[in-house]
Amino acid sequence: MGVKALFFDMFGTILDWRTGVAHSVEKILKPLGYSLDWFEFADEWRSLYGPGMEEVRSGRTPYVSLDAVHRRMLDKVMARFEIRGLPDKVMEDINLSWHRLDVWPDVANALPRLHSKFLLAPVSNANISMIANVVRRNNISFDAVLGADIARDFKPKAIVYQASAEAFALEPEQCMLVSAASHNVDMKGAASAGLKVAAIERPDEHGAGKSSVTPKVPVDMLAKDLNDLANQLGV
Amino acid sequence: MGVKALFFDMFGTILDWRTGVAHSVEKILKPLGYSLDWFEFADEWRSLYGPGMEEVRSGRTPYVSLDAVHRRMLDKVMARFEIRGLPDKVMEDINLSWHRLDVWPDVANALPRLHSKFLLAPVSNANISMIANVVRRNNISFDAVLGADIARDFKPKAIVYQASAEAFALEPEQCMLVSAASHNVDMKGAASAGLKVAAIERPDEHGAGKSSVTPKVPVDMLAKDLNDLANQLGV
Repeated sequence: MGVKALFFDMFGTILDWRTGVAHSVEKILKPLGYSLDWFEFADEWRSLYGPGMEEVRSGRTPYVSLDAVHRRMLDKVMARFEIRGLPDKVMEDINLSWHRLDVWPDVANALPRLHSKFLLAPVSNANISMIANVVRRNNISFDAVLGADIARDFKPKAIVYQASAEAFALEPEQCMLVSAASHNVDMKGAASAGLKVAAIERPDEHGAGKSSVTPKVPVDMLAKDLNDLANQLGV
Repeated sequence: MGVKALFFDMFGTILDWRTGVAHSVEKILKPLGYSLDWFEFADEWRSLYGPGMEEVRSGRTPYVSLDAVHRRMLDKVMARFEIRGLPDKVMEDINLSWHRLDVWPDVANALPRLHSKFLLAPVSNANISMIANVVRRNNISFDAVLGADIARDFKPKAIVYQASAEAFALEPEQCMLVSAASHNVDMKGAASAGLKVAAIERPDEHGAGKSSVTPKVPVDMLAKDLNDLANQLGV
């Protein structure tokens, strides 16, 4: 059964979250007199991503959007950087840094190519409003926004991949997760749920050349970038 | 609080379901030797739409996609037309007629205009795969697909409008339902849920000039078509 839909991991695969968060936070905090390593701030925030979602995945707390998870994590990051007493409005603006991310350079050209043959959807832990805002900002386009918000749970749990396939009325094996090559847990989860997996190199996700471009789990396809993926998929 | 998102009713407002279903069913059944009034067939099928969903809205049966509701209704329509014994594969193909609808003539030009200022989403009782297919077929684009499939219930229940606003992280009053002027129940439901409402004339939904272009419930805006709506919204 052939692949009919491509499911995109967003943070790191489509979006350069590290540069985007660092610049956005700098833009907000620098005029308020703060000076810190903005990339370190972004890295710290991202490092709390897994534990924040695990509260929901484990069933200990009910589903909340990634915006809400990020907001809880932000309090912890601020404490680590010993920043205290920022107004709620500023905290909320910082939290929306994740809505102002930019795509990697190959994305804008490759997505229309891939769309000529496949249904395309983000299958991310991001909530729908976050995706809608980054999609709009980057002038790209998907057929629907699937993932956490429609499954009411977080990747890499099988339900997120399965609910996404079901939303397109497809079998899991007709769907392919497209993921940065270093996201082994995500790719493993997708494969366990029956999806095909394509890994994209993305060496710069955590800083220039710092991310492994060699998957540690079996994948169906390995591509340098999304244009290479389009070439390999014959579009 | 200003309107930030436009929520589109799909069948009748964006899509000419009657022409589309009639032609699709004719294309499938005529070569099999059937001859009937294809528009009457479409009207009959559509007339079962409300009762089919009411099973779910009332809580008597769990949520199923509109595709599944249509499929149950199709059995009844076939019985009314005394057509029996069609293979499952043909029945399924007929059911997908709702995935092959075309938009009204003003839509393709007006949506990009409206998108320059507003977030846009279908808020329909259609399931995500149905919307994805008609969107792709008609080369139009939305920011997300909201509505029944994300709320797991059917309009005009308030939860569908509210879950759609929540998906965009907006208050209900920041969202405006755009609906054919004769869809009074839908517009009333949206207004009750706190949304703004824009009515579009769409006189030809049930055949040339047959639909009322005068809403029977209060609306915030009344427009001849989507380009007129764009004019009135200043885009």
